[in-house]
Amino acid sequence: MTDRPRTRLYIEGDLAAGAAVECGRDQAHYLAHVLRMSPGDPVALFNGRDGEWLARIDKTGKKSVVFVVSRQLRPQAPEPDLWLVFAPVKRAPLDFLVQKATELGVSALMPAITRRTVVERIKRERMEANAIEAAEQCERLTLPRVDDARALSQILDSWPPERRILLCAEAGEAAPINEFLRECDPGGAWAVLTGPEGGFEQTELDLLHKFPNVSAVGLGPRILRADTAALAALSCWQAALGDWRDRPPGRN
Amino acid sequence: MTDRPRTRLYIEGDLAAGAAVECGRDQAHYLAHVLRMSPGDPVALFNGRDGEWLARIDKTGKKSVVFVVSRQLRPQAPEPDLWLVFAPVKRAPLDFLVQKATELGVSALMPAITRRTVVERIKRERMEANAIEAAEQCERLTLPRVDDARALSQILDSWPPERRILLCAEAGEAAPINEFLRECDPGGAWAVLTGPEGGFEQTELDLLHKFPNVSAVGLGPRILRADTAALAALSCWQAALGDWRDRPPGRN
Repeated sequence: MTDRPRTRLYIEGDLAAGAAVECGRDQAHYLAHVLRMSPGDPVALFNGRDGEWLARIDKTGKKSVVFVVSRQLRPQAPEPDLWLVFAPVKRAPLDFLVQKATELGVSALMPAITRRTVVERIKRERMEANAIEAAEQCERLTLPRVDDARALSQILDSWPPERRILLCAEAGEAAPINEFLRECDPGGAWAVLTGPEGGFEQTELDLLHKFPNVSAVGLGPRILRADTAALAALSCWQAALGDWRDRPPGRN
Repeated sequence: MTDRPRTRLYIEGDLAAGAAVECGRDQAHYLAHVLRMSPGDPVALFNGRDGEWLARIDKTGKKSVVFVVSRQLRPQAPEPDLWLVFAPVKRAPLDFLVQKATELGVSALMPAITRRTVVERIKRERMEANAIEAAEQCERLTLPRVDDARALSQILDSWPPERRILLCAEAGEAAPINEFLRECDPGGAWAVLTGPEGGFEQTELDLLHKFPNVSAVGLGPRILRADTAALAALSCWQAALGDWRDRPPGRN
């Protein structure tokens, strides 16, 4: 732990001992002008494929910073396979939801347009930037995939048949979330599905209940906002079936 | 469900059939100018003591709105006894944390100053306003108590001996949260305790581990932000020991 750099960056290039890689303009600005780092300073790099690597700043410039990679700090490891399919919320809660869901370990973020969704323009680039920042801070070795917004029906049309869906339902029949999860085996391919403010329409619920592998679960007697429901369900899933038996690396 | 009003308000006065009660200036403005409601329109009222009541607007004015209470919609009912003791975070995440924790059913919000807390001024009135708005929206029948910020050591000095503490610990020994909660009986008096960005100092952890009724739990391998950890732990507690077997009223 002692020689782990405090700054962690996501990078696109390949990471290997001796490699030179560079970051883009925003990260370069952050390193030079916010953190005031200079050549020789250490950083940790990850790209979602090669694990986490120790590197040092080689050259700083306005448009990019070049790093020289030295040694691997952590190997790439499997992560929970948990998608979040969610009716998009307003801009500030959306930023927040993307950051929190990334910390909570989702593998994909999939905005779904439902009948009651009040669509504002969804900026995928903004979601990606939020996911990168959160992944850097929470010490993940991957980024979640970020999809463009699609109609819920379209998402379901191409749904992988083996992937199970945890449908957060504030109306209608639903099992208490922990009672349901207790009966499931850890791991596997899953998705949490949450509706818009005001909930799914009955026709959508009827469609979902007929869909294979959908299980409706309840999150208690209070009406949760869409983003709260998503974070609560992701937390319960990780604690029951995900990787929350593990501890943060290097902190024991 | 059909005749439940869409607008719910927290009110301080006593609620009983035939009673006239009034709300304050901010709520009056919201009713008259945002919702454009007028005399005769129905609202649901709660005060944390008398359950939820149907009422109608009697008179609107700039400084207050007067309601006449007609009949009880829901009786007051016991709620989980779960405090959240948390090292305060910056303003925007604090607003968010107070709203979400209220939706997740905390009974008290207690800001705790720890050694690594970067204290900004904590505005209790702002926390209360956020809690009231969230309680109105999520259909709670109570408000959480909101305390002034105090030193963690001071909070522990007057700690009720029977109240158990779920310490969210990103470093050191800790049981996976679900493994721990699975062994506990539902209900009882509890608190979730979360540290500041950067975590508790070792001396604080030593103090906490010696404190009676403290159990350190882990929330997985990623480093969660302080507010994310609080929401995740509250969700897991409610799902395991709280009232998340219940469904929202009037929605089945």
